[in-house]
This record gives sequence, structure tokens and C-alpha cells, in this order.
Amino acid sequence: MSAPAGTRGAASLRTPDVRPRGDTGLAARIARSAEALAGPAADTDDVLAWLESRRRAVPFAVERIPFGDLEGWSFAPHTGNLVHRSGKFFTVEGLRATIDARRWSQPIICQMEVGILGILAKEFDGVLHFLMQAKMEPGNPNLLQLSPTVQATRSNYTKVHKGAAVRYLEHFTDPAPGSVLSDALQSEHGSWFFRKRNRNMVVETTEDVPPHEDFRWLTLGQIAALLRHDLTVNMDARSVLAGLPGPDTPRALHTDTGMLSWLVERRAAHQTSAERVPLAEVPGWTRGPASVDHERDRYFRVVAVSVRAGSREVGAWTQPLLEPRGQGLVAFLARDFGGVPHVLVSARAEGGFLDTAELGPTVQCTPGNHAHLPAAERPPFLDEVLSAGPSRVRYAALHSEEGGRFLDSVSRCLVVEAEDAHEPPGFRWMSHAQLAAFARHSHYVNVQARTLLTCLRAMSYGDRQNGWGAP
Amino acid sequence: MSAPAGTRGAASLRTPDVRPRGDTGLAARIARSAEALAGPAADTDDVLAWLESRRRAVPFAVERIPFGDLEGWSFAPHTGNLVHRSGKFFTVEGLRATIDARRWSQPIICQMEVGILGILAKEFDGVLHFLMQAKMEPGNPNLLQLSPTVQATRSNYTKVHKGAAVRYLEHFTDPAPGSVLSDALQSEHGSWFFRKRNRNMVVETTEDVPPHEDFRWLTLGQIAALLRHDLTVNMDARSVLAGLPGPDTPRALHTDTGMLSWLVERRAAHQTSAERVPLAEVPGWTRGPASVDHERDRYFRVVAVSVRAGSREVGAWTQPLLEPRGQGLVAFLARDFGGVPHVLVSARAEGGFLDTAELGPTVQCTPGNHAHLPAAERPPFLDEVLSAGPSRVRYAALHSEEGGRFLDSVSRCLVVEAEDAHEPPGFRWMSHAQLAAFARHSHYVNVQARTLLTCLRAMSYGDRQNGWGAP
Repeated sequence: MSAPAGTRGAASLRTPDVRPRGDTGLAARIARSAEALAGPAADTDDVLAWLESRRRAVPFAVERIPFGDLEGWSFAPHTGNLVHRSGKFFTVEGLRATIDARRWSQPIICQMEVGILGILAKEFDGVLHFLMQAKMEPGNPNLLQLSPTVQATRSNYTKVHKGAAVRYLEHFTDPAPGSVLSDALQSEHGSWFFRKRNRNMVVETTEDVPPHEDFRWLTLGQIAALLRHDLTVNMDARSVLAGLPGPDTPRALHTDTGMLSWLVERRAAHQTSAERVPLAEVPGWTRGPASVDHERDRYFRVVAVSVRAGSREVGAWTQPLLEPRGQGLVAFLARDFGGVPHVLVSARAEGGFLDTAELGPTVQCTPGNHAHLPAAERPPFLDEVLSAGPSRVRYAALHSEEGGRFLDSVSRCLVVEAEDAHEPPGFRWMSHAQLAAFARHSHYVNVQARTLLTCLRAMSYGDRQNGWGAP
Repeated sequence: MSAPAGTRGAASLRTPDVRPRGDTGLAARIARSAEALAGPAADTDDVLAWLESRRRAVPFAVERIPFGDLEGWSFAPHTGNLVHRSGKFFTVEGLRATIDARRWSQPIICQMEVGILGILAKEFDGVLHFLMQAKMEPGNPNLLQLSPTVQATRSNYTKVHKGAAVRYLEHFTDPAPGSVLSDALQSEHGSWFFRKRNRNMVVETTEDVPPHEDFRWLTLGQIAALLRHDLTVNMDARSVLAGLPGPDTPRALHTDTGMLSWLVERRAAHQTSAERVPLAEVPGWTRGPASVDHERDRYFRVVAVSVRAGSREVGAWTQPLLEPRGQGLVAFLARDFGGVPHVLVSARAEGGFLDTAELGPTVQCTPGNHAHLPAAERPPFLDEVLSAGPSRVRYAALHSEEGGRFLDSVSRCLVVEAEDAHEPPGFRWMSHAQLAAFARHSHYVNVQARTLLTCLRAMSYGDRQNGWGAP
């Protein structure tokens, strides 16, 4: 059944040539960027000063408003869903979910379009730099943070609605062959979004890129240093950076196939269902003039804000936001095995996930939601993480979730040295390198674990002066 | 923020040690099994004779019956859905789907439980063998085919309903650490199933495995030879075998990251929705006494059968089946680039997929459904594949789809030497090694492409005497 070998040989002469399948040299280039603390334009203090200057240059005022003052947004008559008259952006609807024996209903944000979160990369003097944006989002406690080059919904980039074209977008919608350093569809908060995912991309260019005052080229070393500051690097940037290739450490406690198999087993083990229902039919939640609230004031509420800019360049608008009740906690327990750094990942089923369960942090919760429970009923490892002495805390910073959807949603992000090597059901020790490899695929690593993965890389730089993602 | 290095060093002394992350030596063991044409019990003719003897030993009679003669199955009063009174097994419901501008409704099989398709592997005299089952399925044209060690729905293995325990199941529900050779959740026909997926596993054991007359240990060389026979290796076996590691050929036309990015782009580009609706509300389909039919008799119909065994060991039952109209065609165009074998994959959006699009064959259709169309409107490459002369056909065999759900669902499976290196939009050349690497992850490669991937491996054995999956 085979064609003669000569036929195939001849064919390959007149056709494009093969290349290495792997990202040759990229890990080394990433390590070099991580070692570089100063970019062509700024050291870290300069970046903080620049962020502050952009904050002052375009002052924004964000105020809570009653739902009745929303422009273009309203509760649909029959369903009670909160919708925009264009049918675009997002909606707040109800979710009826079951995960095994657990059944509940809640409001949930529905945003079915896939957006692009993209960071543009370019070498200057042989060092990879990443084009980061000083971007205001109304829900951020400090409004402006360091963000990806591009954060665009599909409505943005297909220009369904009015507004300026998204700057630098063309690098991501039509990347040159070989220019994509990472690209995956990634979930966001499965407790707050119904199957939302964004395309997380890093694309390298060799072209001249026109400068803009809201954008700066930073090395990974600079970004790592900034990640040690509270509320400075936004969620989308943390998520996208998690997709960069990690170190190629060849040993770990479990094989890669073993880790894949464990996640598959966890996904197959859960019996889940999730369906959208009218917001008006969600029991236990009530709609007031300015908020939709849980009957015991737990979890979150849905509110509305107006956004006004002090500059005429940028318009004013109103929009709903989801406001979590209380500060979150996301934490990895960490430990070396045979000299290889590992973290304790969980397999988390969340109602809004496309595929049942993803790898998450050791602890991911809002401690306030569990304060009324006896210790035995609180999330595993919560008490160990909260009670860890300073000598065991290897990373700690406050980061906020996406400020375009969430109001004052702040989580304490921790990496804590584990007390022992215990691996209870539902948890697995995974090397940093493995977690990084999994994060290059879609829907394996949840958004909280992606934040922590990026922090781990920043930490490994800070700890050892040995570069972003070095083993 | 770092704990003293000594703390971590001490910890690693009293904890389990790390191991290589990769499947060390597995590719070589697979190649050795592919070179072995004779197992401990049989050569290939013996296997065919054994299959025939099992067919004769337990003769089955499968007859079409009217829906009214189904036992335990009925059309639900309000929805018209075809359901079993236990609420288990599967249902036939309606699907309302959109993929971009295309909108349609159709009947669809809903089976939300995740089953296990598992093949047990074991070395005999240093050669990997795979425990294959001679299994009857009522929809197979020849009833009995070579099947995985285990084909079990969750209802089977959690023993929700009565019946004997599934033989050898314990190897898959509680595999020993390090024993899993492959494990992924894989979709099945996205045109016929709503988000169905099964766990595809290969697990190796070193234990004694009690023999049974319906099971035989075969090498990959034997299985490869059997794959050249029509209707011999069933769909579940072809799908599971696609998950074995392929060759580690390090070069290809596109990088792995480039291929991932292309699939992500294709997934993000499509605007899809899929919702289950009552079967009674599906326009264009009508329910008769013995079948649910499309108004123009296209696509498939839903029918019912009774199954009776000639032996008292096995009971009789009735069940619905989906009967495709006409023979299917699945084909890869193939070509070497720089000495590396590639196939032309498509990114296929199907209504029943969990995640929008998966990698599929170059051509996947029922030619009869397109016979009324002008050439320009027929599926791309269909005419090229159908008109290829014998010298270009590198593999050809008839295989049937899962006989527990589909009646006489036969596809002609082809690998055809491509005429040129053209790569139109929606198609990409991918090396065999890349496709095999992607098939180790969930939901990247559809069931038809998994069948062809397994055939490619069999072909590479047959062509070159160089082993299953060797480059």
C-alpha cells in the first residue's frame, strides 16, 4: 500500500522544510530576560513611578450607583437577567449546579465570547522584553495596574460596537508563523463565570513597534520584582505569563502521565451538571435597588458603578460588577523533593468550568465564608496556611481579580513551606516544571493556580538570582 | 521569603524520591511489541480463527423490532425523548445547535456518564502484550470484534444495575502507581453524541492475570496485522490504542506550540451553541412505529433491536440503536516532508463536542449525503480521495463504529498519498509523532482521527517492518 520511496523523496524537495517541534532556545532566552532587572527604559522604581504618573494623568472616578442609573443595562422582564441592550458584553444570569451530592443555585456572569489576553514580546540587545500596559479597570482597588499588551473581547476586536481600534491587536489576530510563544484557552473563576474562557497568548515580534505612553517594554526580571508588590500586576497579566515555558526539570515525584491520569480520574469521578436559569428564579438571592444579595450576605453581590474620566480622551460609562464579600486566600503548600521544588495542587470541581475539574491551589477560599464552621469542616490546609510562621512563608502579596468584572476582589496569595510530605485524596505534589508544562495546555490549571504559578516563578528569581523558571 | 535551604534539604531526606517525568523506555518497549508478530498463544491466523470460534460458540440473533416491543424503553410523554425507565444507560433527545451561521436541529444520543475503555498490558518474555476481548455488540455488521479488555459504563462499574461484575475492571479503577501508560478523556462522534466522552486507558500489570476464553494477549504487531482486515478491531480498541506514545520524531513542518495555537484559534473563531431540546420538538424528523427518520431520509435513523443469545449464559435484551444512512468515509491525505511522515488534519467543529472543535481527518463525511451537490460544494478533498488511483492508497479497510450504539455504521478508512503540499485554511500538515503526542491529551483528536492514527501506526509497521510508531 506504500507509494515508492522515490515519490515521497521527490515531494519533499519541492515543499517547505521541517523544523524542530520544540521551542528551541526559548527557555534560555526566558532565563536571560528574568536575570535582567533593567529594561531599555526603566528600572523597577521607574516602572512604579510611571504607573503612578499614568494614574494621575488620567484620573478616574468610580462610584456605586443604583441599578436604575445604569445606561444600556437592565433586568430583562421575564427572566430577571441583567443584560445590555446590545446583547453584547456579558450578562448576569442564574446557575443551577450539581457536583455529586451538592446542589445549589447562584447568580453567575455569562460571557460566551472568547477574548484575547495577549502580551507582545521583543528582543532588545538580545534580551526578551514584554510590552506591558498601564490600564485602568473600574473594579481594581487602585484602579490602574500593569496589564497585558492587549485585553480585548471579541466584540472589541471584531468592532461590533463603537470605539477606537485596540492598539497592537494585529500582532495577536494574525501572528507570523513561528512567532507564538504560548497560546491556550484558559478558564477564569469557575464560581463566578459560566464557562468563560480567554485566549492567553504571548507573541514575539521582530518589527518596529510604535511606542505609546501607556505601554512599556519590561524584562521578566522587572515583572518578577513588581509581582512582589501588592496590587501592581493585574490578573490577566499574571494569567498570560503563566503560559510561558517553564524549566525542563526532568524529575518529579509523579510522572507527567501519572499527573494527567490523576486529573482524568478526578474529572471522571465527579457527577456534575450546570445549567443557566433565569436570575429571577435563583432561590436565596434577592434584588434590591442597588445590589443583588445572598440572604446571609455571603459569597458576593452584584452591584453597579459609574465610571468617569478626568480627561476628555476617555468617555464615561456605567456597568455592573460582581463584588465578593471578604478577602480571598489562595495558597500553595510548597516543598522540595530530591532537590526539585514541588507544590501541592488540588483537583477542584467548580460549577462554571467547561470540563468538571481543573488543577487548583492547595487552598482557595474566602476564609470569611468558613469562619462559622468547626475546624474539621473548614477547607483542608486552611488552618495550616493561616497559622504558618513567617519563616515558612516564601511568598506573600495581595493581588486583585479582573477589574472589568469584579469590584475590590482582593486575594492574599501565599506560598508556604509545607510541614510534611502528606498527600491526601484530592491533592498531588507536582513540580513547578510540571505545573508550567500543564499550563501551556487549555483548561488544566485554574486562574488562581496560574496566578500562583507566576508568583512561584517570580519567587524563584527573587530567592536564588537564577532566573525566571530556572529549576 | 525563603525558608533556609537546610530545611528543604532535610525534608527531602525523609520523603519519597523523585523519578523521571517521562515514560522512560516505553517507546522502545512499544516498538519491540510492534515487531513481534506472534504472541504466546497465537499468530494472526490463530487470532482470526479464535474470533470465529467465539462467534460460533455464543451465537447471537439481532432483529429489528418496533419501538413498542422495547422492554424498559419508551418515549417520555411530554418530551418525546427515548428513555430507559431506570434513568440510566443513555437517552435519545433533541439537539439545537449553531456553528457560526449554520443552525440546525437533530436527534442526539445523550450519555453523560464517563465510561472506561481500558486495555490491560503485560510483558511476556520481555515483550508487551495487550489483553484483547472477543466481544459481541449488537450493532456490528459481524457482531463480534476484537475489543478492549474493559468497556464499562459508570452504571456498569458502580453496579447501579444488576449483572455480573466487569472482568478485569479492578486494574483500571485502582491502577498501581506508575502502571498507567495512557489515560485521557476522549470525545466520540460529535454529530451523534452530546458531549459524550470515555476514559481511554492503557494500564500495565506485573501480576498474574487469570485467563478467560473470551480474552487473548496480543502483541502490537499482531494487532497491526489485524487492523488490515475489515471489521475486525472495534472502534473502542482503535481509540484506546491511539493513546499509546508515538515516536519522538523531533522535527515537523509546524512546531508543537504552533499546532496548539492553531487549534486554539480555530476554537476561538467559531461561535457555537448546543442545547438539548425535547426530541418531539426537532423539526424535519418524524417518529414512525419502528424508526425516527429525517424527512429526506438523510443522516441516520433511530431504530430498535432485540438481542437474543443462543446460550443460556447470556441474557436477552432490547435497545435503541442509531443507524447511519450510507457508508462513511474517513481519510487522511499523507505526505513526507524532509523524510518525516505527515498527515493533513482538519479542525472540525461538531455540534456535540464539549469544546467547539477537535483535530479530525482530512475528509470525514458520508459521501451519499453530498452526492446531490455540485463538486464545488462537496467537502474539500473528497473528490481527490475518492479518485486516487491504487498506487496512491497507502491504507484501506472498512471499520465499524461502536456497536453498542450504532447499527451497521461502517466507514471506509483510507490513507492516501497527497498530490501536493497545499495547506488550505482549516487544514494543517501534522507529523504522525505530533498527532500521537496530541492524542495523549483529552479532546484534541476526534474519534475518526484516532482510528486513522491507529491505522497509520499499523501501516508504518506493515510498510517498513520498523515497529509500531517508529519514525
